[in-house]
Order: sequence, then structure tokens, then C-alpha cells
Amino acid sequence: MKIEQIKTIVTCPGRNFVTVKVVTDAGVYGLGDATLNGRELAVRAYLDEHVIPCLIGRDPRRIEDVWQYLYRGAYWRRGPVTMTAIAAIDMALWDILGKLAGMPVVQLLGGRSRHGLMVYGHANGRDHAEAIDAVHRHIEQGYKAIRVQSGVPGLSKVYGVSTQPGHYEPAQKGMPPEEPWDTSLYLRHTPELFRKVREAVGFGPHLLHDAHHRLTPIEAAALGKALEPFSLFWLEDATPAESQEAFRLIRQHTTTPLAVGEVFNSLWDCKDLIGDQLIDYIRTTIVHAGGITHVRRIADFAAIHQVRTGFHGATDLSPVCMAAAVNFGLWAPNFGIQELMPHGPLIDEVFPHNYRLEDGHLVMDDVPGLGVDIDEALAARYPYERAYLPVARLRDGAMWNW
Amino acid sequence: MKIEQIKTIVTCPGRNFVTVKVVTDAGVYGLGDATLNGRELAVRAYLDEHVIPCLIGRDPRRIEDVWQYLYRGAYWRRGPVTMTAIAAIDMALWDILGKLAGMPVVQLLGGRSRHGLMVYGHANGRDHAEAIDAVHRHIEQGYKAIRVQSGVPGLSKVYGVSTQPGHYEPAQKGMPPEEPWDTSLYLRHTPELFRKVREAVGFGPHLLHDAHHRLTPIEAAALGKALEPFSLFWLEDATPAESQEAFRLIRQHTTTPLAVGEVFNSLWDCKDLIGDQLIDYIRTTIVHAGGITHVRRIADFAAIHQVRTGFHGATDLSPVCMAAAVNFGLWAPNFGIQELMPHGPLIDEVFPHNYRLEDGHLVMDDVPGLGVDIDEALAARYPYERAYLPVARLRDGAMWNW
Amino acid sequence: MKIEQIKTIVTCPGRNFVTVKVVTDAGVYGLGDATLNGRELAVRAYLDEHVIPCLIGRDPRRIEDVWQYLYRGAYWRRGPVTMTAIAAIDMALWDILGKLAGMPVVQLLGGRSRHGLMVYGHANGRDHAEAIDAVHRHIEQGYKAIRVQSGVPGLSKVYGVSTQPGHYEPAQKGMPPEEPWDTSLYLRHTPELFRKVREAVGFGPHLLHDAHHRLTPIEAAALGKALEPFSLFWLEDATPAESQEAFRLIRQHTTTPLAVGEVFNSLWDCKDLIGDQLIDYIRTTIVHAGGITHVRRIADFAAIHQVRTGFHGATDLSPVCMAAAVNFGLWAPNFGIQELMPHGPLIDEVFPHNYRLEDGHLVMDDVPGLGVDIDEALAARYPYERAYLPVARLRDGAMWNW
Amino acid sequence: MKIEQIKTIVTCPGRNFVTVKVVTDAGVYGLGDATLNGRELAVRAYLDEHVIPCLIGRDPRRIEDVWQYLYRGAYWRRGPVTMTAIAAIDMALWDILGKLAGMPVVQLLGGRSRHGLMVYGHANGRDHAEAIDAVHRHIEQGYKAIRVQSGVPGLSKVYGVSTQPGHYEPAQKGMPPEEPWDTSLYLRHTPELFRKVREAVGFGPHLLHDAHHRLTPIEAAALGKALEPFSLFWLEDATPAESQEAFRLIRQHTTTPLAVGEVFNSLWDCKDLIGDQLIDYIRTTIVHAGGITHVRRIADFAAIHQVRTGFHGATDLSPVCMAAAVNFGLWAPNFGIQELMPHGPLIDEVFPHNYRLEDGHLVMDDVPGLGVDIDEALAARYPYERAYLPVARLRDGAMWNW
Repeated sequence: MKIEQIKTIVTCPGRNFVTVKVVTDAGVYGLGDATLNGRELAVRAYLDEHVIPCLIGRDPRRIEDVWQYLYRGAYWRRGPVTMTAIAAIDMALWDILGKLAGMPVVQLLGGRSRHGLMVYGHANGRDHAEAIDAVHRHIEQGYKAIRVQSGVPGLSKVYGVSTQPGHYEPAQKGMPPEEPWDTSLYLRHTPELFRKVREAVGFGPHLLHDAHHRLTPIEAAALGKALEPFSLFWLEDATPAESQEAFRLIRQHTTTPLAVGEVFNSLWDCKDLIGDQLIDYIRTTIVHAGGITHVRRIADFAAIHQVRTGFHGATDLSPVCMAAAVNFGLWAPNFGIQELMPHGPLIDEVFPHNYRLEDGHLVMDDVPGLGVDIDEALAARYPYERAYLPVARLRDGAMWNW
Repeated sequence: MKIEQIKTIVTCPGRNFVTVKVVTDAGVYGLGDATLNGRELAVRAYLDEHVIPCLIGRDPRRIEDVWQYLYRGAYWRRGPVTMTAIAAIDMALWDILGKLAGMPVVQLLGGRSRHGLMVYGHANGRDHAEAIDAVHRHIEQGYKAIRVQSGVPGLSKVYGVSTQPGHYEPAQKGMPPEEPWDTSLYLRHTPELFRKVREAVGFGPHLLHDAHHRLTPIEAAALGKALEPFSLFWLEDATPAESQEAFRLIRQHTTTPLAVGEVFNSLWDCKDLIGDQLIDYIRTTIVHAGGITHVRRIADFAAIHQVRTGFHGATDLSPVCMAAAVNFGLWAPNFGIQELMPHGPLIDEVFPHNYRLEDGHLVMDDVPGLGVDIDEALAARYPYERAYLPVARLRDGAMWNW
Repeated sequence: MKIEQIKTIVTCPGRNFVTVKVVTDAGVYGLGDATLNGRELAVRAYLDEHVIPCLIGRDPRRIEDVWQYLYRGAYWRRGPVTMTAIAAIDMALWDILGKLAGMPVVQLLGGRSRHGLMVYGHANGRDHAEAIDAVHRHIEQGYKAIRVQSGVPGLSKVYGVSTQPGHYEPAQKGMPPEEPWDTSLYLRHTPELFRKVREAVGFGPHLLHDAHHRLTPIEAAALGKALEPFSLFWLEDATPAESQEAFRLIRQHTTTPLAVGEVFNSLWDCKDLIGDQLIDYIRTTIVHAGGITHVRRIADFAAIHQVRTGFHGATDLSPVCMAAAVNFGLWAPNFGIQELMPHGPLIDEVFPHNYRLEDGHLVMDDVPGLGVDIDEALAARYPYERAYLPVARLRDGAMWNW
Repeated sequence: MKIEQIKTIVTCPGRNFVTVKVVTDAGVYGLGDATLNGRELAVRAYLDEHVIPCLIGRDPRRIEDVWQYLYRGAYWRRGPVTMTAIAAIDMALWDILGKLAGMPVVQLLGGRSRHGLMVYGHANGRDHAEAIDAVHRHIEQGYKAIRVQSGVPGLSKVYGVSTQPGHYEPAQKGMPPEEPWDTSLYLRHTPELFRKVREAVGFGPHLLHDAHHRLTPIEAAALGKALEPFSLFWLEDATPAESQEAFRLIRQHTTTPLAVGEVFNSLWDCKDLIGDQLIDYIRTTIVHAGGITHVRRIADFAAIHQVRTGFHGATDLSPVCMAAAVNFGLWAPNFGIQELMPHGPLIDEVFPHNYRLEDGHLVMDDVPGLGVDIDEALAARYPYERAYLPVARLRDGAMWNW
């Protein structure tokens, strides 16, 4: 069996997605997500110009060999663009293998360990009252776990919070928005938010919070400690993690569980974080960390250290990646939680898929492969529109981490 | 789909083997090796009396769930008997899954990374001259890698060496033989052996040696250092490894590559050995370390630390385990080498199999599942005969490690 | 003097026990417990088929040599089945030696260090009120130390708590019960339980708690911290301990004393836990960790690091093991506490014994050997009935640690 | 002052280069190298589609702010494509700043610390004799330091060695060549090579060697040890360095100085290697590790640990990057050595530059900026031609590190 053709499909049904379609001479094809939010066309070029020519004619069932070929063969390893390109091919090959076997990918990984993936939704509000309302709405919708973010008095715009009620999508058409940041305002405000939410909804629902890389280690340590009475499920992205050591300081001061890794691209980005038990949940995604083949290695390494998965699941992951994540999470013995920021209906139409939300869990039927498709004709009607995530600046004008 | 029946089949076509046969209601069955040399019937009882009753009626495709059920559900985890029992079930379920998918198990693991597994054979001699003859014979037979063991003047019996020319099988009918041991004789003798072998055959063939747990760490360090001029592929089982720290001392003194682990039963037995880079090859077997599901985790953990596989492959592993090892090794990106101590023709007849030796490599065709079967009628003609591995005593009568 | 015969006696006077009886040509015999809860017949097979044939004719007084013979001679070392089999033989040989010397085993270990072993009993309740009642009853019965477990609202079944008042026995006839688990409910509930218990009974009695392997390290750390105001004697089995490193994180956050090890089978399972002072009490049992000969080494190693003994003492240990534990604890200079879950009267009748509970302590008279016997005729009236410990599943169906 | 336009110029005057030209409204422009060998067009797309639109209109003198904007603002940090794109912009801004100041960039970094950069050239031969000839030729040409690579008997193709005499360029038109690899042949051969070279040329010239990621840590340790008598300047890329810990084992066994890092993209790739003194020379390049702004930080961090620079300088770095490296090396107090693989005359014509080789050193005159330009008309005559670095496979067909 041979790979006959590989297409990259770029579409913007509300937001940009890059999808790889690997077509075999056996009449079976597979899909992979290749979307790197705000850097989409670099991945497409990486694939079209450099990766795809090398794969035509290869056996699509040699998944490990192709993975090693792309990883070792690149010479320049790791990084978001490279690992997203590899991930897309890898997902598509697993999709093909599942179709060839007549089995869902979860079965090839070892079969189902659970009936569904507990997800967490995003409850946001411009102030505490609005945030609490949003939490209530999520509970009514059946969510068992809810991330809570709130506007901060004194900051015109805060990560995770819409300036107007309704859908929140951080990527914006046009140039990157520049948002202000002031850690001291945020730190003063946040424990109070969770005190009120717990007062309003009790300790039943799991509550999560995302500090989104804004804190230094000691600030994160202080926040974690201040949040302990409110029993968070996790505190996310407490500090930038290029220096994995940075989490040691946070860990030393608080028992609030820690999650990090949506920006990681390989095991090497979290080897010490996991190996030294500095975190509790690893947030790598299949699309940005080398595909199922590599993320399985990350999850297994995490399990050795009692670290569970808690994969990123914002709208920048296409339904193709989400379908892979559902298959993966149904298997992974150390699955913890899955982020879910549901796509709009048009996106769901472009990418018909098998997974669905039921009672706060992502579930799926057993269909061969990943259980997701792409309507290419519909996709073609929504051409790429350049969009960016925002950037952040401190009050004195200095760049900060968004 | 359901598991309808599980049989344990004990047979002794020259040596004892315990085999698990998992039969499904879909007309497909799978085989697993459950042989624990010299403790065979403890594993059979573990399976028959405690494991099998719990599995009837379960879905054989939920491989991970069954693994976790048997490992966590045992309450008393780890150890050779437990992990061999789990391994047998796990192998059989992968065999079934391969047959259901119409694919060899290697394909389910990610497909072939190589065309064959380089093996090493055993060249033994009662003295140096005989050992060199045996090395020559192995080279003629196409072996690329050869383990060399020799009799030691002053010791009536030495591990790995037949007292009479021909086939060497350490397990013996009747009571465990008690063999004498004297480390100082061995240490004086062994570097000289390899000096002569290299003189006779040059540096082309890979040479290996097994110290078989007889040395203390500092003795092992000294031996490793003394062997450096002869460029060994590895020095095996240099010292008992219950204290993984023991290898730190060896490692500090020599660059001779180190292999250990044929007696290990789980990742936990080698977590520090691998994680601290104290060894180069991990010798766990699929049958004694929890099956394909767990050994994959060991191999992946090893790859992170540039440790390669070098699985045990003596005659105590049935062709069922060897078939699993061939599927595994064809996939494992960090495969290193596979031990091969070929079974006699009767064993091959009881367990017809798909793998074969070609030019010093184990190769196999692509057949669904593991590619091995059992002739139950023939097996039934060779009932179990109690047999033991030897034990070792020092000259003063004290027990030592065989 | 020679070992003439070794019998394994399996009986179920309410629950299953495996007992070894070593008979010598001197008319003296010794008893050893070989019970491995839920895996009993694997140990019996290990003994009957593989160990016992090697021991007939050996001198029963060469206790150390027999231990080394069975440990090193097995080739496949460690694990619950192996070490329980070795332990049973070892206990019986010490029993014989005591009888030969006309001395209790405690005398052969070095004599009494104390007059009795402080025990802790199990106070369980379906809710806090019932649990407090049970604590009161234990105090009235003279217990100085009490383990407290309570039902958790939202969980139909909780480890350590009967669903109906009265005797609690986790092992169940028939297939393993599958119990639900939800860590967040448990964590919210448990500190409150101890707040109320301390309020009810003050700080006089020692209070203990068993988390029974359900927590991740950071969850255990948080629980330990939350329990600090209530001065627990210990928090037990806070997290699974295959990775001994896991306890480092717990240790870093809390001064609540930690106990672990009822599932351990040798020193190697706790070498780092003890050597790095990650725990305060080691819970290995004589029956599951290689007998008196090996557990003495564990206790001595523990003493070097100021770790004390706190042996497991649930009903799965037969009175034979309990008699050994009493002899052991009367000697061990670093004895800490002994768990006591009293057997029912029928079991006491099958195993007449010398130890007894007085004022919250286990005491015994000085009789030769271990001070325990078996009524073989009575035992024969209660044949083995397969039984299992439960397993645990999370709400999403995934396997968890029971 | 504003950035008015940024162009990416792709040209293939013998090999592919991507160059960034930042044009300001002050009539000054700057050049940056953006070449990522074999993945060129991914970087171009990253720049054209995502980076450049954000920079138009910004003040080109805010070099630090632009760097932080591109690094933090990308959200997805690190990796070869990202950091090469950032590097190209950064180099161009430093070029502009130098021109604005009327000063060479070295002056802005702190001024000259030395008169020239000692370089090492590449002496290659298909066998030892040819390699020795090549060393002699380099000595005659004034080189003070020479990297020596030789063909290995039994391998048809070896990294760093042309199959025909003359210029060696690893990147090839067409699909990636697949080259065979066998570590044992290489290890046997290499110490002998250096023994002969030292015999031929004495201990005057510095000799270097590149193991090019082919070895495991213990193999690298053994090679380092075996090379000690020949006093190498360094052993390069001894083992893949994603796991920085891997170098600890090499370091423990040998005092042969170690260099690594041509594939690194940021400080985070070498933080432990440098911080734990596991290497002696850091080989990051300005083009692949985030530009002058970031590489200055790497060099400063290295100086803290007495690690010196030894930057990669193969033909895949355009003269733009080489000009930046010369400016950088003239300043860096902990400069060690600079690799030099001279470009052919056509490349030098497309990129006229100020640096030159004199007596084994790279020197330059003081001209404003980086001292390099691009002949765009000439460049346009050589359009991009897809080319790849080779990949390596072991004899059994498994992927290895090229």
C-alpha cells in the first residue's frame, strides 16, 4: 500500500484551520490537524514544500518509521511548526490504520478505559457577578468542571474574558491586539473571585483557573497558596515554563494542583516538570506535540509519575484534533480532564465528526479511524484570513507574556 | 465480543511451558506465554484459580482495561508470578486484536521500523579453545553477535557452559543442582578469554558476555574496565540489581556497555537504572514483565534515556513469547538486540510459528496476530516434569547468586 | 535433624487462610502463614510444586541458609507470591527453633524490649456520627489508638466502611466487587471528619487514617496539610508507592506522619522511602515480606533512619502471622504500633494462640516458639472458597486503585 | 523612524539561502539570514505571512522590543522555524543600527576584544591517507585548527566525507539521500585515525572531530576516552542532546572537551548543558538561535560557567550570518573558535562581504553595520531548488540520527 497524494487544506469557517489529507492507493484516506494558531501558513509551507514530497510512495502503515523519518530526518528538531507538521501526518496515518483495521483509533491504542471524557468549559465574566452567572449556566448545561476567568478592575481587557457577552475567541482578524497587564491588580482580585464562586455554587463542581503565563514563580506560589481554601482542580500556566525549574518554587509553596503545557511541542519540554513531579496535569495537544505517536509517549511518561493528562482544547484545535483527543482520552489510563471550547455550527459542518458532548463528557461511537471528516467543497468557500492572538504589555509599555 | 473460555496448557516437549489460550465468542482465539522457569505451576494456579474466573465474559478488545484490572485489582502488585500471569493474558489479547484487524501485532504497535532483529547466539566452551571454536561456528552460521562463556579452571561447572559438548539447557529435571562458585578464579580468567577471542576472530563480530549476577559492584567495575580493550557489545547482569544504585559504582568506572533485567518484572525494577543512565540495554521480557502493554512502556521510557532493548531470549521463553518479541522488536524504535537460544525441533512442532532466523536476524512474514499457534494434541503428549534452575554456593558452602 | 514433611493447609473458617506446617524428624513442627488475600492458591502451588520438594531432608535449624536458598535460588526474586511462600517457611523454622530451645521466638530475637504492643483498632461509620460512635466504643474497650474511616456522601461504598453496622471484611466471595471512587468527594469530607472526632474525644486517643492508595501525591500532600490541626498518629497509604519518589512531594508539604507498606514484599520496595526519610512507619508484614528473617532486616534498616514499625494487621493475616508479629514487636527496639482487626471466634478456634489484647495492647505469655497452633481437623471442615478484594473504578469507568 | 518594507529573498547560487531585507523610511536597510537548511520555505512563510505584517511601521531601533514582541507574541515559542525567523529580523535591525551609528555591529556590542577569530576548517578523506593529506593542505593554507573526518571501511557513505575528492556539501537536490550507519565500525576506526594524524602532523595544530549525533552516551564516553591521547580541541555532537542529562555520562568518563548545539534554537536547549558544565563549547548559531540579541545572552550565560563559543559555520549559514558571527566573535570575551566551511565564489558574489580569512583567522574591517550586502539582481537569477540533508538508517533499516 502506498501514499498517493497528500493535500493541505486551509479554510476559515469562522477561524483558520489547516488540515492534512493523506490519500492512499487503497482508496482509504486519513485526516490530520495542522493548525498552529496565528502561524498557520508556516506549517502549511513546512508540509507542502518539505515534508509531503518525501512521503509520496511510502507505506502509510509504517507509522513509527514515518514519525522517526520526519523527526530525526528534519535535522532541526522540535518547535511548534515542525512538531505540528509531524503531528498532522501522524494523525492521518492513525486514521488510515483504523480504517484499514475497521476499528476506531482508541481500539488500536489498547481499547477503551472509560465511557467518556470529563471536560471543562469556560465561564467568563467582565466582573465577578457575570462570572458567577456563567458558572451557573455551565452547571445547568451539565458541565462537571468549569474554568473561571473574570475581568479585573483597572484592566480594560483580560485574557479569557470577552469584552461583550457571548462567545470568546482570542484570535482576532487584523493585527495582534495589544492588551494591558498588571499582575498586582490580578493577584488582589483572583482569590476573591474564587471565594465568591465557592460561596455561590459550593464545592460540588470542579473549578479551574488559567493564569496564562502572566506570573513569576513566587507570584504563582502566592496565588496557589491563596487559592487553597477554594480547592481548585488546577491552576494553569502559572508561569512561563521554558525554564522547567521555575515550577520548583511554585511547587514548594502550594498544594494547589498545577497544569501546564499547551504550548509544549515534545516530551523534552516537560521532561523535568513531569519527572520531578512539578506538575499534576500535562496539557500538550496531539496537534502541537507530534501526534498520537509522540503524545502517547508523553502520557505514558506522565503516568510513571502520577501526572495525568489535561489536554488543551480551545477552538484553535480543529475537530480533527479533537476527534484524535477523544480517541486518545478514551484509552489513556492516566487521562485527567479535557478542555472543551465548543466550535460554532459552521465549523462542525465543515468537519463532520463522531464525538459529542453528553452530560459534561465527550463521548463517541465506535467508527473506524478517528471518526471525523472534512467537507472540502464547503471548506473551499471559506478562504484563509490572517488572524493573530493578542500580545500583552505592562503599564510601562514593556512586553509581557500574553 | 466476549471472552468465552481461557485455558492454561502445560506441556513439556523437552522443557516445561505454560501457555494461555483465550477463546472468544467470535471464533477467534489468542495465545500467551505464561512460563516462569522452575515456578511454572504457581503461575498456572494464579491464572486458573484467581485470574481466569474474573475475565470470562469481558470484551477481549479492552486490552488496557484488562491490564489495569489485573495489575491494580490484584492489590498485591508486581513480582514474577503476578506479572507473568498478566503478561500471558495481555499477549493473548494482542494476538486476538491482530487477528480481528487482520494485521500482525507489529502493525498495531506502529508498523515495522526494521526488516529483522539482530540476534546474539551462545558460544560456550569448557575452555578457551572450545569457546573459540564455538565462536567460529556461530560466525559460519551467520550470527553477527555472539555471547561467549567459558569454563573456568578450578570450577567444575560454570553458568552458560555445558559439561559436555552440544545443547546447553540450564533447567534440570529433579532437584536444583548446586554449583560451586569462586569469583576470583572467574575474574582472572575472563579478560584473557576475550583477548584470545578477539585475536582469533578480530573486531568484526559483536561479542557479549554474561556475568550472571555473580559479581559485587566493584568487581563488576573492575571486570568492565579490564574488558574495554576488547570492545564488548555488552556486559550482562554484572551484579544483582535489587538495589539499582549498585550500578552507579560500575558505571563510574567503565565504559563497557551494561545490560540487565531478565529477572525484572516491571518498570519499577529499572526506573532508576534507566532514568539515571546506569545501563545501556534493558533485558526485560514480554512474558515476565507484564506483556506487550507494559513492556512497551518500559521500552518507551528507555528510549527517552537512549537505552535500547536487548531482551532475554533463552529457551525458557516459549515460541509464543518469542513471536511477541519479534513483533515488538520489528517495531520498537530503540530496539538493540535480541537474545536467541533456539528451541529444539519438537518444541517448534508443538508451537508452529512464523518467525525464523535468516542471516543472523529474526524475521517474520506478515500474518495476523502474533503469528504463532499451539498443537494442543501434541502438547498433551508431553506432560509437565518438575525441573529447576541450579543454585550456586561459594567454596565455604554459603549461598551465592546463580 | 531433618525436615520430614511440609504440608500446606488451606481452610476457610470465615475467610481463607493458607498455613504451612513443617514437620521434623525430631517430633517438633512449626507453623507459617502463607495467606495472600485473593491469590491464595498461587502461593500454595508455589510451595507445593516448587519449594517443598527442595526442602525435604534439610536441617530446619539452618534458617538463614534456607532463606537464601529460596530467595536467591528462585532466580526470579521478589513479588507477593514468592515472598509469601518464603515467609511461611521462614516463620515455621523460627517456630521450630523456639520449640527446640524451649523459648519464645522473641527471646531468640534478643528478648523483650517491652511488655506489650500498642495496637490500633478500626472505628468505621457510614457517616460522621456513626464513626464518632465507633471511636467512643473503641475508647471504652481500652484502645489507645484508633483508625477512623467514614462513609463519604455521594459514594455508595467506601473502603474501610461496612454498608451495614458490624464486622467489616473487605474480601468477598464471588467475583471482585467493583466500587466507585471520587477523590474530590473524599478530600472535601475527610478533614471535617477529624475535626469532629477531635471535638468529640479530645486529643487523648491516637487517631489514624488510611487513604488506601487513592490519592495522587499532590492530593495526599493537601490532605496531610489539612489534617495537621488534628494531630494524626499517621496518614496511611497516601499514594501508590511503586515510585518511591512519589512520597517526596507529600513529605515536602506536610508534617503529618506517613505510613506505608502493607503491600510491600521486601526491603527493596521501601529502600528509598526509608533511606530518604520519606515515611515514619513501615507497614510490611511478616507474611508478605519474606518472614522474620527478612522483616528483621527491614526493621533494622528503618531504625537507622528513625522509622518505626507499624505493621499491617487486618484479618487477612492468620493468627500464625499475628503470633509472629507479637513476638517480633515485643523485641523490635523501633516498634511503633500494630494494626489489629480481631479475627472472629471460629478463626481463633482453628488457630489457638497465646497472644491476647489487654488494655489496648497485644501481650503474650512466654511459651516456646511462636505460641500458635492449628486444629487441622477443624480446619478441614472449612474448605477454600474463592474470594476477592474489591476493585475500584472512577465515575467515568476507568480503573483506579482500590 | 519606521520600517517601511521587509522582503524575503530566496536564492540558490549553488545552495539555497533565505535572506530578510528590512527597509526603513530613513533610506537605511538591514540584512538578516533566515536560512534553515532543507526547511527554507517554512521560515519564509513564517516571515511573509505572519511576522512581516506586524512589523511594518514599527521603529527599527527598538531591537529589544521587537525581539520580545516576536518571541512572546508568537505564543508558540522556540523551535527552529520560529527562532530562525526571529533571528533574521534581529540581525537586520542590528545591521540598521550599526549603519545609523556609522559603526560596525561589534562596536555596539562593546567593541573588539580580539583582532580575529580563529577558525577551524574541514579536512576530509575517503580513507586515513586522504584525510591526512587534507590535514596537510589545511596546515599549508594557514589553518590553526582542523576538523578531521574520514571514510569508514564498510560504510559506503559517511557524514562529512565526499565520495569524490573536492567540495563537500551535505544538502542534496532531490529527495533526502538515505545513508547507512554502523556505530561499531565507526568506533573501531576513529581513534586510529587520530593516532595517525598526530603521528603525521604532531601536536601543533588543533584537531577537532564531529560525531554528528550518531553515538549513545556510553559510546560517546568510550570514544572520548579513546581519543584522550591525541589531545583533541573538541569532540562535537557526541550524542543527541534533547535530553541534556545525556551528556552527564559522557562527561563523567572523559576529559576530551565537548561541543554541541548547532541544532539548538535557544538558551533553553542548553541551560543544563552549560549550567552544569557538561560541555566546553556552545555551537549555537546566530541564525538558528534567535539572532544577536538572544545569542549574546547564551554567550553571557556560557561565560558564567567558563563555557566558550564555537559556533557552527557550515555552508548553510549565508554570508549574512557569517558577517554577524564575525562581529559577534570579535567582541565576545568568551569566544572560543569559529567553524568555517567557505562558500563558493558565486555565493560570495551574491553576498559581497567584508570579512575574510587571514592566517587561519576571520578578520574584518570596520564598516558600518554587519558588513555584508546582497546583489538582488544576481540572486534573482538563481531560483530556489528543493534540497535536503540526508537521513541515516542502520543496517537493519531502522532510522538513526544523520
